[in-house]
Formats: sequence, C-alpha cells, structure tokens
Amino acid sequence: MAIQVDINCDLGESFGRYKIGYDQEIMPFITSANIACGFHAGDPNIMERTIDLAKMCGVAVGAHPGYPDLMGFGRREMKLSKDEISNIILYQVGALKAFADASSVKLQHVKPHGALYNVAADNREHADAIIKAVESFDSTLVLFALANSSLTKQAADVGLRVASEVFADRAYNPDGSLVSRRLQGSMIENPKIVGERAVRMVEEKKVKAIDGSTVELENVHTICVHGDTLNALELAKSLHTTLKTAGIEPVSVNRLV
Amino acid sequence: MAIQVDINCDLGESFGRYKIGYDQEIMPFITSANIACGFHAGDPNIMERTIDLAKMCGVAVGAHPGYPDLMGFGRREMKLSKDEISNIILYQVGALKAFADASSVKLQHVKPHGALYNVAADNREHADAIIKAVESFDSTLVLFALANSSLTKQAADVGLRVASEVFADRAYNPDGSLVSRRLQGSMIENPKIVGERAVRMVEEKKVKAIDGSTVELENVHTICVHGDTLNALELAKSLHTTLKTAGIEPVSVNRLV
Amino acid sequence: MAIQVDINCDLGESFGRYKIGYDQEIMPFITSANIACGFHAGDPNIMERTIDLAKMCGVAVGAHPGYPDLMGFGRREMKLSKDEISNIILYQVGALKAFADASSVKLQHVKPHGALYNVAADNREHADAIIKAVESFDSTLVLFALANSSLTKQAADVGLRVASEVFADRAYNPDGSLVSRRLQGSMIENPKIVGERAVRMVEEKKVKAIDGSTVELENVHTICVHGDTLNALELAKSLHTTLKTAGIEPVSVNRLV
Amino acid sequence: MAIQVDINCDLGESFGRYKIGYDQEIMPFITSANIACGFHAGDPNIMERTIDLAKMCGVAVGAHPGYPDLMGFGRREMKLSKDEISNIILYQVGALKAFADASSVKLQHVKPHGALYNVAADNREHADAIIKAVESFDSTLVLFALANSSLTKQAADVGLRVASEVFADRAYNPDGSLVSRRLQGSMIENPKIVGERAVRMVEEKKVKAIDGSTVELENVHTICVHGDTLNALELAKSLHTTLKTAGIEPVSVNRLV
Repeated sequence: MAIQVDINCDLGESFGRYKIGYDQEIMPFITSANIACGFHAGDPNIMERTIDLAKMCGVAVGAHPGYPDLMGFGRREMKLSKDEISNIILYQVGALKAFADASSVKLQHVKPHGALYNVAADNREHADAIIKAVESFDSTLVLFALANSSLTKQAADVGLRVASEVFADRAYNPDGSLVSRRLQGSMIENPKIVGERAVRMVEEKKVKAIDGSTVELENVHTICVHGDTLNALELAKSLHTTLKTAGIEPVSVNRLV
Repeated sequence: MAIQVDINCDLGESFGRYKIGYDQEIMPFITSANIACGFHAGDPNIMERTIDLAKMCGVAVGAHPGYPDLMGFGRREMKLSKDEISNIILYQVGALKAFADASSVKLQHVKPHGALYNVAADNREHADAIIKAVESFDSTLVLFALANSSLTKQAADVGLRVASEVFADRAYNPDGSLVSRRLQGSMIENPKIVGERAVRMVEEKKVKAIDGSTVELENVHTICVHGDTLNALELAKSLHTTLKTAGIEPVSVNRLV
Repeated sequence: MAIQVDINCDLGESFGRYKIGYDQEIMPFITSANIACGFHAGDPNIMERTIDLAKMCGVAVGAHPGYPDLMGFGRREMKLSKDEISNIILYQVGALKAFADASSVKLQHVKPHGALYNVAADNREHADAIIKAVESFDSTLVLFALANSSLTKQAADVGLRVASEVFADRAYNPDGSLVSRRLQGSMIENPKIVGERAVRMVEEKKVKAIDGSTVELENVHTICVHGDTLNALELAKSLHTTLKTAGIEPVSVNRLV
Repeated sequence: MAIQVDINCDLGESFGRYKIGYDQEIMPFITSANIACGFHAGDPNIMERTIDLAKMCGVAVGAHPGYPDLMGFGRREMKLSKDEISNIILYQVGALKAFADASSVKLQHVKPHGALYNVAADNREHADAIIKAVESFDSTLVLFALANSSLTKQAADVGLRVASEVFADRAYNPDGSLVSRRLQGSMIENPKIVGERAVRMVEEKKVKAIDGSTVELENVHTICVHGDTLNALELAKSLHTTLKTAGIEPVSVNRLV
C-alpha cells in the first residue's frame, strides 16, 4: 500500500470586498481546507462559498479559528486567558459548522490560525484551552498541531485525534520549531527543494534544520501549503506532483489518524 | 388541562466588561431564553455563561441573532441582501449552538433581534432569508415571529415550526404591529395592566390596540418579557404570578408548536 | 485662462493584510485624494502611508468617512440618527486629520463614502448632519457632493465651500442622480466615451442621461475616477490626457471653490 | 503658595447602549478627564457627550487611547509593532480632538489606557512609539505616564511635557510599579488610608510599598482616581476633600508641567 499524507491549505481568508487567496485554483491540489471563521479573516458569506467550493472539489473541511484581530490578520499575539481562548474557539468552530451543516458537509478538523497556533505549540495553558474547546464540542474532530510540539502530546494524552503538521516551504529551527517569518531564509521558494523536503519528511520523518542539523519528526500526517500568492500556488501544484511521483498518495487526514 | 404559554426573554446581552440585564434574577420567571450571539450583543464568554445559567435553571435556550452592529445594539436597520441575512443568521446560530453542544443543552429556537426582527415581520425577502437559514441549519428548530406577521405564515407554509410571539408590555397598532419604541405610550409599565393584557392575549387571543380597537391574534405561543431594567424584572415576576393565578401554565415553547 | 477642474479618487481603502486599489499608480493622474478613515475601509497604518504618498505626489488630501460597516464596505445603508451621522463623520475626519497634521499636510476636503454619500444627496436630515459635522470641525474644509443634489444647495446655504462632483464613467438618470451600480449599463467602460463625457461636463455643464435626455449640471468642480481595478486605472490615465488635450487644466479643488 | 496636584479619571468608557462609569457624578471632584477614543471603549456619540460634560464642569480633557480590543476593554496585551502602536494612538487622539475642536475645547493631554499604559511603562520600543505619536501630532500636549517609569524619562529627554502619575488606591511594588490587579491586596479601599497615601505622595513624594518598604517618587503631578463603581466615586470625593483639607490645591495638569 502506498504511503499516504494529507495536504492542507488555509482558505476562505477573504473579507467583504477584500480578496485574498486563490481558493478556486488551489482546491485540486489539496485534501483538507482550513476555513477562516470571521475573527482574523473570513465572513459569513465567504464561509458559505468556501464550504461549497470544498464540497464541489471533494476536499475535507476544517475550522481555522484565530484571535479576534482582523486588522492584524490574527498574527499578533494577544494575552487571552484560558477560558477566553477556549470560548473564541468554540464560537468560531460552531459558526463554521453551521455552514457545513447547511451544505451537508462533515466537519473534519480544527486548525488554530497564526499567533494562536504558534503560541499553543509550546504554551501548556493555551494548548489546554484549545484541547478543551475541541473535546467539549465534538471529540471526533481532528486537531492540527505542529509536529513534535507539546500540543500534539497533550492532545494525544486526552485521547483526541491529532494530525502532526509539517511545513515543506518553511525553514526549521534545530528544535523542530519554525523559523520566524520575520527572519531571512524562513521561506523556501524553490519548488524542487520544497518537493524534496516534503518527500523526505513523509518517507523518512526527517527534515534538515536551518543550521544543517537534522530534525527527527515524530509523526507526519499533513503538509501545509499556501495559496495566497501566485508563487505559492505554483509551489502547491509542484508539491502535489512530486509527492505522487514519489508514490505518496494525498488523502484527507480523516483516514490517517 | 391547563392552557399553556411560553415566556421568553432576551438574555446574554452583556459584552466584555459591559453588563446589561438581570439574567440571573429573571431566569426563574421565564421558560425560554433568547441568547445574543455576538453581533449586536454578547461575546463568547457571555454566551458560555448564559447557556450554563439557563441549563441550571431548566430554561430552554434559543439563538438571538442580530445585525452586525454592536454600536447600535442591532436596532438600526441595515440594508443587507437576502444572502447576507441568511448567512449572518447561520453564522450566529452555529456559534451559539457550539456552546449548547459543549454543555449538552439542546437548542430549541431562533429569534431574530431588534431591527432584524421588525423588518422580517413584513418584508418578504428578509423573511425568506431567515426561513432559509433556519431550515437549512436544523429544520426542527422553532422560529419566533411576531404574531399575525406575514413571517409566521411564510414559515408555516414551508413546514417550519413557528412560535407566534406577543408583547404584553408593548402597545399595538390596529394592524397588529408594535407601536415604535420612539413614540409615546409604546411601553406599558403598570404590572396590573400588563398582567391583564397577557391573560386576555392567551385566553381570548385578543389585545386592545392603542386606538382602542381590538386586534385579533391568530396564535399566541410565547410572551416576551424584558429583563434589562429593575422595573422590567418586577414586571416579569408579576406577569408570571398573574398567569399562574389565572390557571395558565408557563412551559417551554417546544411543547406548544 | 484655461478652464480648470479637479480630479478625485477614493484611496487608502486597503485594510490590514487586505489590499484594494492601485494607489501608487493612480496618484499622478489625480489632484485630490479621498482617504478612507477606518470605518468602511482603511486602518491607521494605511492612513499614514496614504497621506505620505499623496504628499509626495503633491495631491491634495481629504477625509472619506463612511458607515461603520467594514464587511459591507460602507455600501449598505444604515438607518442612523442625525446625531449619530454627525458624530461618525467628526470621528473619522479627526482621525484622518491626525495623520495629516503629523505629516504637515493640510486637510482640503471631506467626501462621504458609498451609501452615506448617496443617502445624503437627497435626504435633508442626513445632509444636515454632514454639514453640521464639517462646519463645527473646520468651516474652511470643502465638502464634496453630487452635482445638482440638494446637499450642494443646503451646504452652500450655510456658507460651506462645496465642490459639485460628477462621474464621467457612471450613467446618469434624467433627474441627475446616478444609475444604481446594480443595474446594467450603470458603468461606462470605453475610455473614449468617458473622456468625451468628461470634457462636455466641464465645458458645457451637460451630460447625456441613460434615456438619451440631457442633464444640465449646475456646477462641475471635480470629476471622480476609480482606481481599484486595472481597467479603472487605464480609464483615469486616458481621462487625464483627454482633459489636458482639450485645454482643461486639472487642479486641486481648493483653487476652484 | 499652596502645593498643587492634578486629579485625573478615566471617563467616557460607555459604548452604544452599554453604560460604564459615573461620569456626571465624578466630574466635580477631578481636574483632568481621560476620555476613551473608541478602540477599547467609547464611541463617537459618547465622546461628544463626554467632551461637553467636561467643558461644562471646567475639567481639562485628554485622549485615552487603547488597544483595538473592545471585548477585552484594552486590558489584554497585544503584540503590536512600533509603527502600529504609533498609528493607533495618532488615530484615536485625532478622533477625540475632532470633538474637542467642534466644542471649542483645548486638548490638554494623552494618557494611554490599560495594557498599553502598563507595557509602555518599561518597554522602550512601545514608549518610543507613544512619544513619537504625541510629538508628531502636537508637541504641546502633556503625556501621562507612571511616576518613576522609564517612559517618563524617555519623554522628558525629547522635550515632551510629562505628567508623573500616581495611584493612591493601588498597592505598589518596591520598584515603583503597580501590584497587578489580579493579586490580592492590589486595591486599597479604605478612604482614610487612600487619602493619607495621597497626601504623603504629594507632600513627601513617598509611598509605602506592599512589602513595607518605601518607594521614593521622582515626581507627582497627577493622581488617578476611578469612577466606575459607587465605591470608587466615594473614594474620589473623600480624596478631594482630604487633599484640600491638607492644603493641597487640585488644578489641571496644564499648570503644573
């Protein structure tokens, strides 16, 4: 049997008259869509359209909740209490589920967005808040978390289904965390290198860190691609082809965890 | 068997540090709580607390979606398209349902708020948008609508469960619509009169309009009370007692439609 | 002396990570910039950058306040009271002026945006609210209003400086109002026709309405161009050339009213 | 000549239908009003009313800008860049100034709110951002900052007028910072003790820290009082009397720095 991996992308990040992302173009190359829920991006109309688009393309859908900070696109850390985090996640996941229900689509997963995702990777309290929200809402949902992060362990400990996520086009620190977007060399733009990294991540569970050392990945269930620039779109297409050529089958994460 | 009627109240209308309403105090006197969903009032933390409070008191819960206008408390009409209305309702109802699910509480109903409620009463397009949202999300939900309004008929026509709502403490126009809050005499503050009106509404399906004429009410399933002032709270208590004294049993609308 | 006219464009309508408009590209072809103030579009960072860009290009700046409705881009009418309208305008104009002051740029004008602009054209109460806000803040500011609208007359009556605005690329109704964007034929996309209309508007104070009749324009101080699509940008360039070729000099409205 | 000190209070913190604070009641007991500007609290209508109220009572007015976080009342730290902080302050100060201008009231000062105030006290980058905003907007404005904080020094170094602020009803750490509101003993509620602390702060430039040690205050220009609870109101009244009895004259900070 072929090795399998999920390919996910953040989508539905437009807002009102504002457009971001090549949602329609990227859909054929992914297997899971993380749909913004109105706090850092997205609005009710966009959410409806994105669910429908994913359904039409046979792509699994998940909620992509973020901080309540449209101006900062959810990328600026906000010091929220544990309960506040848990509640903004419940709110957003529920809002997205309404559109899924209305279109008879099953909600597959939850992936926190931006600073919320990054902070939760190694902040035990934030991680607990996210776990609590997902568990109490629907414990069959899959939680996306950075591979090797303590969040993956905490979620697994309470029996939640966890998808370990890797980023083929982002540089890694030796400890397995991502190199900050603000630093040079954080983004890898050469499609060939991105493809090779992805294949190695899936086949060997290894990735070369920015200092040349090797990071051992505990699990690799899903690869994140970007769809908000034309270049990112090319990268996604190329990655999809490279994986298949290497005998790796892209499937929705639902079948993997 | 005793005549039965539901008593509903708008709750969970606080926001962040801002407090509105005597939610805790009014719960014992109502049978259905309409919980704000974050657009005109309410926030994720308030929603969680209000659901828990209602559960503890055995009060049925419903979503109370409004226009996206916190500054205007959802009382200023906004010219939204049919799809926009349908989607803001889906969004808010879903968000509230997340907290209901997390607390193992069943969502009973949807009651549009403020200007959204008023416009939908006789605007066929807005009415359609609301009906479409409720139907597509969960067709077992009860929709609250002004008694005698065309919304009640439209909703019944498509097979939706509809609760005809009356307001014992608001003056009526001869056509069955409510006298605008901005006009004098629109609010009735004498508890005795409010009680008598309520009893007559339930028993005879009649209410005296502001010009002295009689409005025939097609159905009376639920009476709205207010809980945002100390006086309103007194009114609600008194109404509850008056109904019971008259042999009318307050029950959640779920058992009535 | 050459005939003169102002050319204005709505700018600074991006928000956070969301980009709208070719602000940089259009600046050389206009003489007045209407800068969004954060309610329907724009944010503090965008406002700062747009003021600086206009300053660098020698383009006069004005405030472009709208309804508090980012999701609807200020294009959905909201039923606000007179005081509410006056206060949202004061707020936004003041906010923009802070960036003008910080960059030592003089604020030239105020142009209401979208639905606020349209409603004010013939709604006396909204018109009064806008006039009151501008007058009380700084009575030397120029108010942009649709040519022939009652707003122009009301503002002139109280001694405010008014710029009568025309739209060369929008179809007109016989009464001088604009054909709604939602109707077919509302936008004129042929640069040659747009140029000819503009020249006739300035030279003869006339424009052909959608039914073939002729609208007499009382005053023509400023022509609105759009800068949010590549085609609009082409149109603006072509209009600028056509006007100059016809011997019409583009100058900031400050010198015209 | 009598010793003089300013008494300031955060006001105008209501929002839409939401009411916070006893603005009218507290005005007679203060000399400077810090008026919320719409981001963490306040809205255009509230701002207009609060300016008018302060004018009527002869109280000096200042802008009280906060993080864009109404849900968190500006009390949750947000990781904004230096430019972002500078721009949200410019925006809010300008917005408030519009209402001051419209009412012919002079803007006296700027006091950052909540987490923005706390972070700026010892974060050099945030402090710089605030200083830059105030300087570029109007370098005659007075900046309120925590007494002994590095912000007071940085602002003085660039020639800005700085008011060193003390809190008579808050416990101090030995290093001169305030004990966090979340810790027990952070608030002092006994009016007699608050009054004695205030008098000592003004006369001796000293305050006893929570561990019993003495904090030497470099400057004491203004004392902050709260007006959002009935008890706070009592405290403010009592403080006003105690100061006057001790021969200390309350005057607007404009006359002190």
